[in-house]
Amino acid sequence: MRVLILGGDGYLGWPTAMYLSARGHTVAVVDNMARRGYDNELGAESLIPIASLQERVAIWEAVTGRRIAAHIGDICDYSFFEPVVKSFQPEATIHYGEQRAAPYSMIDRRHAVYTQVNNVAGNLNVLYAMADHAPDCHLIKLGTMGEYGTPNIDIEEGFITISHKGRTDTLPYPKQPGSMYHLSKVHDSHNIQFCCRIWGLRATDLNQGVVYGADTEEIRLDERLRTRFDYDAVFGTVLNRFLVQAVAGVPLTVYGQGGQTRGFLDIRDTLACVELAMLNPPQGGEYRVFNQFTEQFSVLDLAKAVQETGRALDLEVRIDHLPNPRVEKEAHYYNAVNTSLLSLGLQPHFLNDTLLESVIHVVQRYKGQIKPHLILPQVNWRETGSPPVASETTAD
Amino acid sequence: MRVLILGGDGYLGWPTAMYLSARGHTVAVVDNMARRGYDNELGAESLIPIASLQERVAIWEAVTGRRIAAHIGDICDYSFFEPVVKSFQPEATIHYGEQRAAPYSMIDRRHAVYTQVNNVAGNLNVLYAMADHAPDCHLIKLGTMGEYGTPNIDIEEGFITISHKGRTDTLPYPKQPGSMYHLSKVHDSHNIQFCCRIWGLRATDLNQGVVYGADTEEIRLDERLRTRFDYDAVFGTVLNRFLVQAVAGVPLTVYGQGGQTRGFLDIRDTLACVELAMLNPPQGGEYRVFNQFTEQFSVLDLAKAVQETGRALDLEVRIDHLPNPRVEKEAHYYNAVNTSLLSLGLQPHFLNDTLLESVIHVVQRYKGQIKPHLILPQVNWRETGSPPVASETTAD
Repeated sequence: MRVLILGGDGYLGWPTAMYLSARGHTVAVVDNMARRGYDNELGAESLIPIASLQERVAIWEAVTGRRIAAHIGDICDYSFFEPVVKSFQPEATIHYGEQRAAPYSMIDRRHAVYTQVNNVAGNLNVLYAMADHAPDCHLIKLGTMGEYGTPNIDIEEGFITISHKGRTDTLPYPKQPGSMYHLSKVHDSHNIQFCCRIWGLRATDLNQGVVYGADTEEIRLDERLRTRFDYDAVFGTVLNRFLVQAVAGVPLTVYGQGGQTRGFLDIRDTLACVELAMLNPPQGGEYRVFNQFTEQFSVLDLAKAVQETGRALDLEVRIDHLPNPRVEKEAHYYNAVNTSLLSLGLQPHFLNDTLLESVIHVVQRYKGQIKPHLILPQVNWRETGSPPVASETTAD
Repeated sequence: MRVLILGGDGYLGWPTAMYLSARGHTVAVVDNMARRGYDNELGAESLIPIASLQERVAIWEAVTGRRIAAHIGDICDYSFFEPVVKSFQPEATIHYGEQRAAPYSMIDRRHAVYTQVNNVAGNLNVLYAMADHAPDCHLIKLGTMGEYGTPNIDIEEGFITISHKGRTDTLPYPKQPGSMYHLSKVHDSHNIQFCCRIWGLRATDLNQGVVYGADTEEIRLDERLRTRFDYDAVFGTVLNRFLVQAVAGVPLTVYGQGGQTRGFLDIRDTLACVELAMLNPPQGGEYRVFNQFTEQFSVLDLAKAVQETGRALDLEVRIDHLPNPRVEKEAHYYNAVNTSLLSLGLQPHFLNDTLLESVIHVVQRYKGQIKPHLILPQVNWRETGSPPVASETTAD
């Protein structure tokens, strides 16, 4: 199958490109290097050193004999993006190409507007390009479980049947996203559903949980194929960040009580889920939603699991409860359905000591690169991030 | 009260500015003249000639002795907008400042991206400016009944209590918007609700129906104070457009069967609703939604009402059923709640023959200005609006 991967240089995009290339698909990736740019902006970097995209595809070809075409450019720039779709004629487009960190989107007004405009406009460009040049292409869009928030009822997969005043309808599941980034994904979901309806496009919205892990089968072929691993407070997601903190000997940073419960999955399951969606496409005109996670944990559960595994490896792991920089419930009901991907055949890699240990071993190899000053959260949801106003009356 | 009106040069913004100024409020308006620009782009114009914003405020002061401050600029330009909020210190901000035509947003990719980016980024700027410089200000945001689409259950005011698998929660009402424009309003609603939650802002989202009418009490003071009146297929909303068609002697353009049912209200009720919301603000941190319409009609009902009124005035009014340029249900259940504004004291002006006749009389005065070629819909929801591709093999 001809597969176009947007954001193909990222934490998940690059492993997905290799995974699908290894399975015989014709893969092209698009990336504007925004993720590397955020690192430059923040003075952060992937714990695991990564090759340039140009090197990655060259190494991949040298190791496997398979080619991955790389297009460097911005999907928001239609004069760049449209010809890519027109010439490649993708049968599936996997869209990871968005700003994906909640804290980054909450830095200040500029970052909020950037995140929403970048994500929404880029996604609209994808939809128009597909409608004009690849109308049968299956859009596989990465959404997030964070679109749902933490309602006091079970979370269904995208839609819910509601009986109300004697009548019944199945409607989009209500969304309560918790950051400017999560909001952008809700906007995307509405836009995609509409375009499926009016143009007969087909799309799968993968509402993904928090991904952990550093290794995939393809990465193990050659260490120069490794994907990025983030532990900073802006881009480092919770479990990966805890594992780095455990190795660095700094406390695990649990925000508030830690009762925040979310869906999680192993990076290898992300690749399997995307492939399952791709091999089982929806009908033309169908917009479907899969909740893409394998297990639910509270943040404190995860911290304790890391603590326990750390002890077995003679690491002294402390847990700190920081004042929560986010506005979110710290104790709440959470039960989300995730049966669609399982019924397509997903064989989950559940979280266990072996996985935690293996990631800790990877992290230990790069222990010297850890910059502890990047770990504590600096972005506070309750503030706009605007610079403090200088006094109006200045001494002169 | 100090009231900042965004989009204060528009069909509703300008009458609102006069209405609130006449009632003793301190009014400032912001407008970037985008609406006049769309006319230039489309070769269209208001049927009723309108003065420039600069003339309007000068005439208003000459007629009433009251001043309305006018700031010409774009709310998407934060270097312009932030100082306006900081210096004026609004107690209420009434936000009409968005691209508001569904067909305009569906012209092509550029217009879709423009509409969503303009509306979403402008609204985010409003939220950040309020949070930083007027945190107690009440945001009164114009949304649309079109955010809800046409669900098969009753439409509540913004939220719905759902019982599901033995548990219950009150959640945002599911949204099924029907154009890139309507989608932008759904995006705004999610963004506003989030900012109320994290920053303690207060906001009222007015999900407004289709507005009709040309006259308000203030407009009758001096004809140079008149507001615009649109009848073209892009910006002319359904009832106003039918009245112009009746006068022009061209058929009323009903799209499809005409069973599409929507909420409607008189322009005078828009002003009253906005004032009622303003005088009865929500608590800090509260995001509330009012459905702002007074009656429900199907499009065919309206066409028949115009036909009947026309006959009494010796106009021969025909009704044409055009192929529907939109993707929407033409026969459907529709029942929306609108009790909040009524319980605050709204006294509706219901649609009747007198109103239809009076608007027809206004329109007749400008009959010579009607450009019939602007009336037929050119924008088709089922197409992307991309130019036809030239043949790859050109004769040479």
